[in-house]
Amino acid sequence: MFESAELGHKIDKETYDREVPPLRAALLDAQMDMAKLAKFPVIILVGGVDGAGRGETVNLLNEWMDPRYLQTHGMGDPSDEELDRPMMWRFWRELPPKGQIGIFLGSWYTWPIINRVQGISKTADLDQSLERARRLETMLADEGALILKFWMHLSREKQEKRLKVLEKDPKTRWRVTERDWEHYKKYDKFRTVGESVIRHTSTAEAPWTIIEGYDPHYRSLTIGKIILDAIRKRLDDADQKISDVSAPPPLPSIDNLNIIKSLDLKQKLDKKTYQDELEKYQGKLALLTRNPKFKKITVIAMFEGNDAAGKGGAIRRITGALDARYYNVIPVAAPTEEERAQPYLWRFWRHIPRRGRVTIFDRSWYGRVLVERVEKYCSEADWMRAYSEINDFEAQLVRHNIVVVKFWLTISQEEQLRRFKEREAIAFKHFKITPDDWRNREKWTEYEQAVCDMVDRTSTEIAPWTLVEANDKNFARIKILKTLCAQIEAAMQKKEP
Amino acid sequence: MFESAELGHKIDKETYDREVPPLRAALLDAQMDMAKLAKFPVIILVGGVDGAGRGETVNLLNEWMDPRYLQTHGMGDPSDEELDRPMMWRFWRELPPKGQIGIFLGSWYTWPIINRVQGISKTADLDQSLERARRLETMLADEGALILKFWMHLSREKQEKRLKVLEKDPKTRWRVTERDWEHYKKYDKFRTVGESVIRHTSTAEAPWTIIEGYDPHYRSLTIGKIILDAIRKRLDDADQKISDVSAPPPLPSIDNLNIIKSLDLKQKLDKKTYQDELEKYQGKLALLTRNPKFKKITVIAMFEGNDAAGKGGAIRRITGALDARYYNVIPVAAPTEEERAQPYLWRFWRHIPRRGRVTIFDRSWYGRVLVERVEKYCSEADWMRAYSEINDFEAQLVRHNIVVVKFWLTISQEEQLRRFKEREAIAFKHFKITPDDWRNREKWTEYEQAVCDMVDRTSTEIAPWTLVEANDKNFARIKILKTLCAQIEAAMQKKEP
Repeated sequence: MFESAELGHKIDKETYDREVPPLRAALLDAQMDMAKLAKFPVIILVGGVDGAGRGETVNLLNEWMDPRYLQTHGMGDPSDEELDRPMMWRFWRELPPKGQIGIFLGSWYTWPIINRVQGISKTADLDQSLERARRLETMLADEGALILKFWMHLSREKQEKRLKVLEKDPKTRWRVTERDWEHYKKYDKFRTVGESVIRHTSTAEAPWTIIEGYDPHYRSLTIGKIILDAIRKRLDDADQKISDVSAPPPLPSIDNLNIIKSLDLKQKLDKKTYQDELEKYQGKLALLTRNPKFKKITVIAMFEGNDAAGKGGAIRRITGALDARYYNVIPVAAPTEEERAQPYLWRFWRHIPRRGRVTIFDRSWYGRVLVERVEKYCSEADWMRAYSEINDFEAQLVRHNIVVVKFWLTISQEEQLRRFKEREAIAFKHFKITPDDWRNREKWTEYEQAVCDMVDRTSTEIAPWTLVEANDKNFARIKILKTLCAQIEAAMQKKEP
Repeated sequence: MFESAELGHKIDKETYDREVPPLRAALLDAQMDMAKLAKFPVIILVGGVDGAGRGETVNLLNEWMDPRYLQTHGMGDPSDEELDRPMMWRFWRELPPKGQIGIFLGSWYTWPIINRVQGISKTADLDQSLERARRLETMLADEGALILKFWMHLSREKQEKRLKVLEKDPKTRWRVTERDWEHYKKYDKFRTVGESVIRHTSTAEAPWTIIEGYDPHYRSLTIGKIILDAIRKRLDDADQKISDVSAPPPLPSIDNLNIIKSLDLKQKLDKKTYQDELEKYQGKLALLTRNPKFKKITVIAMFEGNDAAGKGGAIRRITGALDARYYNVIPVAAPTEEERAQPYLWRFWRHIPRRGRVTIFDRSWYGRVLVERVEKYCSEADWMRAYSEINDFEAQLVRHNIVVVKFWLTISQEEQLRRFKEREAIAFKHFKITPDDWRNREKWTEYEQAVCDMVDRTSTEIAPWTLVEANDKNFARIKILKTLCAQIEAAMQKKEP
């Protein structure tokens, strides 16, 4: 979920200086139009990790925009007036009226998260708070509000680095409090809780957007653009009802960096090492799946990837180590008639294995947010809601002690071309290449965007994506076997739920 | 919430025999049309208290309808196959395909409720289960399913009576198990948990309908009609997306009985008794609100009622006993400009008092589901969602230790006419009567329906409605004072939350 926000996004000063003036002008225009129309308020929540520039970003937005139509509310400790009333009262009193923007630095998420991180509340309490937040936001959206939630993120290393930089400079030292360092010590816990909050409350009507907070140029420009786009879009269809097709806005690609592009596809394994490692990890997998403890768990391994990325070959390297009585490979193609008469996920539910089994999906439920999205086989609203449906689905699997291992196999455009041509040239590989493959290839960029969105929204702590650099088949297969073994091993060591 | 389902609804045999044949024919027609269209499945959940005829009703539906397009699933204890997979798997495998009806006797609610009643799980666990249920149902609805959830209800007395009758007859004795009697002993707990489940999961896309289960004719006819109407409505706009305007279907009025009609408006208090009681309860209220413990709670009393039902007079009898520094009366009229620029509930949130205070609302947030509904000042979708928004709102108040006391003052049509005329005749009462009052009067039936729906959907354990028979002002005022005192007393005796 935080993958895209740990890539080291950066905008140089020159680009920034060039892009800011028109952005400011456009934001001011949008504010004027909003105020004139006076049909909907904009509610912006800014949360995230310490040192990720929450306060600075809000200050900058205030500088950029027209203060007559913008209020900022720093929601620190509640006053005694506020403590005397239900928790939400302090937010209700500060809600922006129609035509105005309200920025909340700290929100109805702040205390539930902090209390959970500090162990004051339990997961179930957190869930209750999130449920209340979700209901509040649904109501606000139904009343017409445009809700934007930003989560400013820093990797652990970057957080530490930034706190130290701030602390060193006498001009910014005051910004780093003891509480910040205390929070830093709980970074992992904070990250886990934050991830779960984002996963549970990123709804169609009030999505979270995760922003890498390290580079001030990048974060400011990105947030400014997202706010502008969202307001413009709403102004354009002011009469339309919301919530149909809004969802986590895709991050504007302003520095041409994404998780797929950031992979090092040059990684290789020579034949000898490959043979050794293959033997080693196949042996390990064979032992693991024959261990008595394996009877208590279930494994679902799932393969997605570019066409010709080598999914089939990788799957065969796994099944080679398994007992045929206890595994199944499910190739996912177009749904059958019976399957089309059921909800989308039905055809995957039917293949959920019993305990002690392994099921391998060759393509999967992610088809909806990949091929169905890009080829427009389903409506935008359908694939938008699929992210959270899939997260729910996988959460149910994991709760039942199922190990969900998800692989995305990436190859470069050039490598794909080479493999396509090889398939056409070699008779026994002919069947593997179809006109569809060539057609998909033309939509390379759209598919890449779809993959990035998919990973951003569905790579969760409980069911993370493993991105596999697959230009070299040897390297890919070993990485897959290794990951699979590691995840099974971890699950078997966990104590019973 | 269960008020309407404890009135003793009844249909005589003659009516039943007359109404069933056309209903069956219409149901079969609807099934055929559904099957031909094959665009959506119907998912019917049947739950509720033991002895309320759940099984018999399902059997009857099977008898009435075409078995080719109908499957029934008794969801008892899960099989070992099912236990080996995530809990929801057993429901997924039985989902009806498009064009078909699936009836679930027992559902994803059954075990969460039973576990909570038996104390195996906590409230927070129950909330998590409900959240999962809600997400599942949202997904099913998004996929096109028509979801109907029936809760078969019996009052405690009726349940006991019915279990005894069943047990006495050798032909039906087998139906009463030890578990039924065990559940009966936990009736109150079951009722409380059931109420909370219904309140939290009665959504626009999957509403609960509460059915009084005592009279077989009444319950069968009612359920049959609701199913028929829902399918017909969906068939009529098969291309339309759902969830906009479905919501708890109003109970078809098949026996002309409702909670307002069931009130005994003849109740009276003579002047002497009234004076004594007034003094007594005003004194009690004065003491209660000056008790040091009162500093920890907050009281919100809310008055709704027919025009000329005597709200103002009743409120003055309360404020007469209070310290002017600590109470406020908020008359609710048309919203101001500032209020119109905010979400509907904002204008009530702003008047939430601090601890140790009393706020009296003369008319309230229920305007949306009363006058705004009947006079069409807001859209159907808006007042439909208001029920759950109001329940959420009041739950927040109650969680904060606020005592929410809600009064509906009922007078008869004749009594209202008498008072209107009196107001017109007496100079100093002139200001109290407007053309609006006469206009509202013409919509008596619509208002009565709106009131019944309001009580059904918002009279909760935590914030129940008190219906006040107000033809006699003396009687009404004393009932109100008494109720208010009792609720404040109960709140002060509760230990700190």
